[in-house]
Amino acid sequence: MTETVVSSPTREVRIGFDRPFVVIGERINPTGRKALAADMARGDYSRVEADAIAQVRAGARMLDVNAGVPLADEPKMLADVVRLVQSIVEAPLSIDSSIVAALEAGLSVYQGKALVNSVTGEEEILESVLPLVKRHGAAVVAISNDETGISENPDERFAVAKKIIERASDHGIPREDVVVDPLVMPIGAINTAGKQVMHIVRRLREELGVNTTCGASNISFGLPNRNGINSAFLTMAIGAGMTSAIANPMHAEVMQAVLGADVMMGRDPDCANWIRTYREPSAARPERERNGKRQRRRPAAA
Amino acid sequence: MTETVVSSPTREVRIGFDRPFVVIGERINPTGRKALAADMARGDYSRVEADAIAQVRAGARMLDVNAGVPLADEPKMLADVVRLVQSIVEAPLSIDSSIVAALEAGLSVYQGKALVNSVTGEEEILESVLPLVKRHGAAVVAISNDETGISENPDERFAVAKKIIERASDHGIPREDVVVDPLVMPIGAINTAGKQVMHIVRRLREELGVNTTCGASNISFGLPNRNGINSAFLTMAIGAGMTSAIANPMHAEVMQAVLGADVMMGRDPDCANWIRTYREPSAARPERERNGKRQRRRPAAA
Repeated sequence: MTETVVSSPTREVRIGFDRPFVVIGERINPTGRKALAADMARGDYSRVEADAIAQVRAGARMLDVNAGVPLADEPKMLADVVRLVQSIVEAPLSIDSSIVAALEAGLSVYQGKALVNSVTGEEEILESVLPLVKRHGAAVVAISNDETGISENPDERFAVAKKIIERASDHGIPREDVVVDPLVMPIGAINTAGKQVMHIVRRLREELGVNTTCGASNISFGLPNRNGINSAFLTMAIGAGMTSAIANPMHAEVMQAVLGADVMMGRDPDCANWIRTYREPSAARPERERNGKRQRRRPAAA
Repeated sequence: MTETVVSSPTREVRIGFDRPFVVIGERINPTGRKALAADMARGDYSRVEADAIAQVRAGARMLDVNAGVPLADEPKMLADVVRLVQSIVEAPLSIDSSIVAALEAGLSVYQGKALVNSVTGEEEILESVLPLVKRHGAAVVAISNDETGISENPDERFAVAKKIIERASDHGIPREDVVVDPLVMPIGAINTAGKQVMHIVRRLREELGVNTTCGASNISFGLPNRNGINSAFLTMAIGAGMTSAIANPMHAEVMQAVLGADVMMGRDPDCANWIRTYREPSAARPERERNGKRQRRRPAAA
């Protein structure tokens, strides 16, 4: 059974076929968030701190951290953010950048086993990111595009993923440390986007036995009632075998879809987490949220 | 491509793999509804009338009608309800009873091609219901249990369904007129209930090419936040290939899950129905609802 293990000094998270779905909080990312970008540019990380705590409280078991602020010293900033977030929450991190030096800076200060976000099938990226992942003993998100761009043919995207997994293996990275992102396109523009993802996820699971992730919110780009679309997408993707996603845990509807999908997949024994979360209005928050360092810990139910 | 066609004098509904999911409104059923049962027992059908209109408005494209009132003359009552509901809404009906004489009475007054709910794999039921279905040119729901009860092994339930389909064929009923109900168990009691259904639905679709339905609300029996569980179940079941369900369309969350799943499956071209339904709060009702006779018709969008 494939399990991707990531960790912080005090917490281990296992992404796997028989494990509850792992939500990786997407909020610590200045892309498209002007206020956050402005704060970060002037060295004010209070919003980062608040986002870290709030996302863990809302049920994210990992957090994605990105410091892609235009004109900023991204390697230094990403290292600062990684250090800061690790000082606040126990959740393991996904270190997110398209700049290899920034990934390296983030990894160099990270405590535990991180998820590197990401490597693509492009030759230059493969040969710069994979050695870094190996050197730091990290896991890595493999995005299924290459020099030719993103294919609309899901089987071509599957082939790119397969190539990345093989190359990772050449670098000594086992397939359980490669989490494939099949690439989620906006379904408002490409009506087959949902079916494409389900198809690739099933193939990745059945033929290659690898874990999967994605940027879930992309699916609803440009549509009204985005949470409704995101919920339908996550539920169906989990049914097809997806095991994690970078998503916004601050939307109760999205978290409910994930917890409901865990129940459907038989990954919530006796529905204990569901019952605890929804049995009374005042308790209507996922149990998972209570892993912030500032939260009082409750014992896990049987 | 398997399509089950049911109809009223003025409306045809197609249940099929590439069609939008068909919600069959569950509300006209006195089982567990004391007030409705009491009304029906004294011949007051105003609640039936209101339920028929409300469910169609909320997006049900078919309605299930059941007249199982204790001590009542169920055949006469079911015929009365069928006649009444057909005089009010255009939606085709699922005629629901465990009494063969009641199914016969309902079918004898039904105008169009009905769905008979249901036949099981029990010998006596098979040989009394199937001739009736054939004589009236109806379609039929095949429930996958037999004399031995309901197996917890989904492959045994699949085998029962296969037997019913074969027997129906012996009676001259084509497989496209058999809609299989894989039987949905409460997931709070049987944690594998969700996976069982997905497994049977996939096999039914891939190996036998038949349409499927179920009593969706059973899945959440005994759990809090039932709509959340029902939504997760329906979304995942649609992803696995389910093509219709008897459900409660009065829950906006459940209808949203169905419309979202249609988008995911690429069955809502250009997401037109989703956009129309959710683009502004005042329009937050499915387009499908507008097929009640008392509703002004709007032109379908491109």
